[in-house]
Amino acid sequence: MPVKALFAAPARLWEVYASALPQAFAEAGLDVDLSRDHAPDEVDYIIFAPRGPLSDFTPYRRARAVLGLWAGVEGIVGNPTLHLPLARMVDEGLTQGMVEYVTGHTLRHHLGMDAHIAGPRGIWQPVVPPLARDRPVTVLGLGALGGACARALAGLGFAVTGWSMTAKDIPGVTCLAGMEALAAALAGAQIVVLLVPLTAQTENLMDATRLALPARGAALINPGRGALIEDAALLAALDSGQIGHATLDVFRTEPLPPDHPFWAHPRITVTPHIAAETRPLSSARVIAANIARGEAGLPLLHLVDRTKGY
Amino acid sequence: MPVKALFAAPARLWEVYASALPQAFAEAGLDVDLSRDHAPDEVDYIIFAPRGPLSDFTPYRRARAVLGLWAGVEGIVGNPTLHLPLARMVDEGLTQGMVEYVTGHTLRHHLGMDAHIAGPRGIWQPVVPPLARDRPVTVLGLGALGGACARALAGLGFAVTGWSMTAKDIPGVTCLAGMEALAAALAGAQIVVLLVPLTAQTENLMDATRLALPARGAALINPGRGALIEDAALLAALDSGQIGHATLDVFRTEPLPPDHPFWAHPRITVTPHIAAETRPLSSARVIAANIARGEAGLPLLHLVDRTKGY
Repeated sequence: MPVKALFAAPARLWEVYASALPQAFAEAGLDVDLSRDHAPDEVDYIIFAPRGPLSDFTPYRRARAVLGLWAGVEGIVGNPTLHLPLARMVDEGLTQGMVEYVTGHTLRHHLGMDAHIAGPRGIWQPVVPPLARDRPVTVLGLGALGGACARALAGLGFAVTGWSMTAKDIPGVTCLAGMEALAAALAGAQIVVLLVPLTAQTENLMDATRLALPARGAALINPGRGALIEDAALLAALDSGQIGHATLDVFRTEPLPPDHPFWAHPRITVTPHIAAETRPLSSARVIAANIARGEAGLPLLHLVDRTKGY
Repeated sequence: MPVKALFAAPARLWEVYASALPQAFAEAGLDVDLSRDHAPDEVDYIIFAPRGPLSDFTPYRRARAVLGLWAGVEGIVGNPTLHLPLARMVDEGLTQGMVEYVTGHTLRHHLGMDAHIAGPRGIWQPVVPPLARDRPVTVLGLGALGGACARALAGLGFAVTGWSMTAKDIPGVTCLAGMEALAAALAGAQIVVLLVPLTAQTENLMDATRLALPARGAALINPGRGALIEDAALLAALDSGQIGHATLDVFRTEPLPPDHPFWAHPRITVTPHIAAETRPLSSARVIAANIARGEAGLPLLHLVDRTKGY
């Protein structure tokens, strides 16, 4: 008898996953009946993304797990009807995409590329950047994404400090942990990358006080969550020159409204939430692997610790 | 008795090396009498850069070697008065700077950053680049600089093809060799990096025929030597769309004259020969290490094969 998997995500995602998931199930040798319309008490696994048709998990009495299509789970983790195990999307392709975005924009700020790309033309002014080993970069968040980025930046030679809520150990990276170490992690950084999960504790993490800690003129790269930054404090820090540039991929409201001041600011680069865009087949394979584990009686991968919220 | 080293390079280099070289000699425990004015027949080592005071090597009968301050040796290798061993500058700092420039600009083109940095504002248009593994990058030249760049790009996940005159073997890089393999190395590349030495055989290497080989819209990155590219052919390939963008760090005339068409071209990024700018102390340590080897009777490092011209 096939496993019944309910696809509970916005319709636009069905367009891509309706073919990617069956392909991944077939590759994994799984017999899965995938549908958007299973009767609730027959569903074995719920494949989920927020803002779709499902918000009340109560009738899914037989379901074994909720398998998220997104890395961020703040749209579901507080749902009071959810008592099932919840797995986040930890997609190697997504991590790789994030590493490419973060290393690329870190090197862009490190090398001062913008002056060559968009600067005045005809002026030969050799300004040699320091080597990466003399460029302090701080990565806030050392989970699957932040940890991979910290490793890649250290591999390129950057002087990397990593910070996370709980202690981590990454070779070549100075690792600090806990709220009491956050100021030390930010102090003197010339490039700061935000990859902490969004929780009650990290909302507005980068407020006026924390934005004052990096080196004057530091670059801020936020491919994490928009609400990690207090928007007005960022604009003030940019206008004062304390923050030299902000490259932002995520926003409190997405798409970023056309009249939002971030668009027009000369020291803000807006990218349209592409840093870790899910590649469907890659994610579908992660869902398939977790269903295979569930069916084999193995613990699921990437389970969310609901007491921490991520 | 101290070793006599002649500093034979343009005066502006003396300003930085007059302190960097003695520091490096001291670190290496060497007793070196460094001067710009030694009597020719008393000189043991010639520290050299082109366009300085020295072009006739005939009177330096006792000298043991010419130690170049630059990676490129085309300004000296054809000098008919030079019969001394000639060492190139292979500076770890220089290699690292080149790797940072090349990985940075490769990621810039890969991620399509320019559209976000300089493009129209207020338009939310998520275009997700492929992963690096699906981005074919070709590196022409697999010497100290090209080899390090190919390795770094492969380490970031790019699908790297490397090409060189003589066969090389770099893990994770598809290595091709010889003029007869050049077309295959260029075919279908989406990003091409030029790091071959400039010789009679490689001058104008990227002519109209070769510029037609990469994928349509490919990016060309030249941190090697200006004369590797036939300028008019590049402008034509950019105007036809065959080459999508060129990022150029080196030019036939430097500084690039203010009225040169490269400055104004919307699909050319000019950087002012900064990709592998020598950091003086780092290079001075390489010179000191070679003098120490010479004095110890060991073969010098980084000797130029004058039959090949590099």
